[in-house]
Amino acid sequence: MTVMFHSTLDDPAEWVPRLQALLPGEDIRVWPDIGDPAAVDVAVVWIPPEGALASFSGLRAVQSLGAGINQLGMQSFPPQVRVARLVDRGLTGMMTEYALLAALRYARNLDAHERAQRASTWDYIMPTGVGSFTVGVMGLGVIGAATAMRLAANGFPVCGWARTPKTLDGVRCFSGEAGLTEFLGQTRILVNLLPLTPQTENILNAGLFDRLPRGAFVVNMGRGAHLVDADLLAALDSSHLAGATLDVFRPEPLPEAHPFWLHPRILMTPHVAGTGDPDSAAEVVAENIRRAKLGETLLNEVDRARGY
Amino acid sequence: MTVMFHSTLDDPAEWVPRLQALLPGEDIRVWPDIGDPAAVDVAVVWIPPEGALASFSGLRAVQSLGAGINQLGMQSFPPQVRVARLVDRGLTGMMTEYALLAALRYARNLDAHERAQRASTWDYIMPTGVGSFTVGVMGLGVIGAATAMRLAANGFPVCGWARTPKTLDGVRCFSGEAGLTEFLGQTRILVNLLPLTPQTENILNAGLFDRLPRGAFVVNMGRGAHLVDADLLAALDSSHLAGATLDVFRPEPLPEAHPFWLHPRILMTPHVAGTGDPDSAAEVVAENIRRAKLGETLLNEVDRARGY
Repeated sequence: MTVMFHSTLDDPAEWVPRLQALLPGEDIRVWPDIGDPAAVDVAVVWIPPEGALASFSGLRAVQSLGAGINQLGMQSFPPQVRVARLVDRGLTGMMTEYALLAALRYARNLDAHERAQRASTWDYIMPTGVGSFTVGVMGLGVIGAATAMRLAANGFPVCGWARTPKTLDGVRCFSGEAGLTEFLGQTRILVNLLPLTPQTENILNAGLFDRLPRGAFVVNMGRGAHLVDADLLAALDSSHLAGATLDVFRPEPLPEAHPFWLHPRILMTPHVAGTGDPDSAAEVVAENIRRAKLGETLLNEVDRARGY
Repeated sequence: MTVMFHSTLDDPAEWVPRLQALLPGEDIRVWPDIGDPAAVDVAVVWIPPEGALASFSGLRAVQSLGAGINQLGMQSFPPQVRVARLVDRGLTGMMTEYALLAALRYARNLDAHERAQRASTWDYIMPTGVGSFTVGVMGLGVIGAATAMRLAANGFPVCGWARTPKTLDGVRCFSGEAGLTEFLGQTRILVNLLPLTPQTENILNAGLFDRLPRGAFVVNMGRGAHLVDADLLAALDSSHLAGATLDVFRPEPLPEAHPFWLHPRILMTPHVAGTGDPDSAAEVVAENIRRAKLGETLLNEVDRARGY
């Protein structure tokens, strides 16, 4: 088996020795030093090198280094290529941490305190604790479910929404278009963890924001294309929404002239909510390389027709 | 029994009906409409009204509405007056939330991301999760112990320090001057929850900061007088410390010209880390009013000689 590793974010010096230790005898090569492209069986990538996969005529599988897979451009892959998301307890834990941080920051008025500090103004706001801040988690896959549970464990009332019905201990779950309005109506902090598909693209739009209570907050940890940027700006500027925390953008990096950068109600982070931890994730990736060799279904294999 | 309620922070409209319901038949008066000052048996206060307590010649007890009591000026109270801190699960929970928020914010590099955003700069920092950020909690009373446990439950390695030896599940505890250097040496985020006494005043000083690793963060949730302001500024400006989160100040409100306000490495909040929640705290206060009537030791009574 020949494996090609490439990432602009993940360090091959961290990953390759771990994969090699788990897969003795396999040939793991780091882009661009990959020899004959036709020999590559499995590509392990965050974003594939531009145009490269077209020359991998023997490719059997693509393993994403992220939880999402829309950045892979899998529409152009031959149909027999299997594609896997990365589901890793390190990554999942980091995503739940980020959501907890973003939600605590709003529940404890830190955004307002930061603005007061910049104006050198002592502006006491009676704190209320998290019990009155219902968090609504959109997307209840592995990461969404873990996020909902962690927020609940830290005292937040939590509700969840997914395309199909789900059940989670301590989380009030809604599903489908029919459940969306009731879900949104009780959400003070909306956390988006949906996969990006044609159905969820632009889902964070004016029509959705209108169904949130006045003064709600939005946290986008999914993909930049979930969000209609202009609709968010309008909802913030009308004070219908009180703030947004954005970790993902279209495009990334976000151009310097984009109005998000200096907006006083937007907190931006550069796509850092979660990343695969090679200590835990290398085992998952190695297992998928073994499965690709045997022609088996991969762990967390994407349904290419459904798109996630 | 005559009870006098006064606070610049806590709303009598929230507190008095709850106390009255718990203490039918007792006479609860709100400052300044208190009638004969000599009739007041118990004062329930955050900060006593200036000079008022001297005229309360029948005073038996003072119940603080805060976890700390140094703001009461109890040195001037007659020796028979009992003094109680407020220990309330609502307040304790809020303090632990604040510490978790402050620690997550540093562990997830949010301070650095905020500075990058203000400069419209996409500055990717590989996130690492909380496992490599040891939090050191100074002060292991009710709030300090609860804070240490909550941080540990959220994945932080935690160590603790107190004047006298303590034992806490999952928390490496140190005590006394002998244990302080080892405690500080492994602390990346220092959270101060000590009581303010002559022994702990100015404890957050240059000599202590020097024993923290380079790049450590300080979170002061105790009292402003724990911290030597000029030493903190010097340690930040030399980059020995990487940041500070301050909820308490000397004096409060902090004067507008103080250099903390606009310091890029300081996050300030206006003494909001915790406040008594009348829903849970009114029961504790009512029980102490009952005890004062019977001449019994109060819940969470202060050792006036020790100072906490």
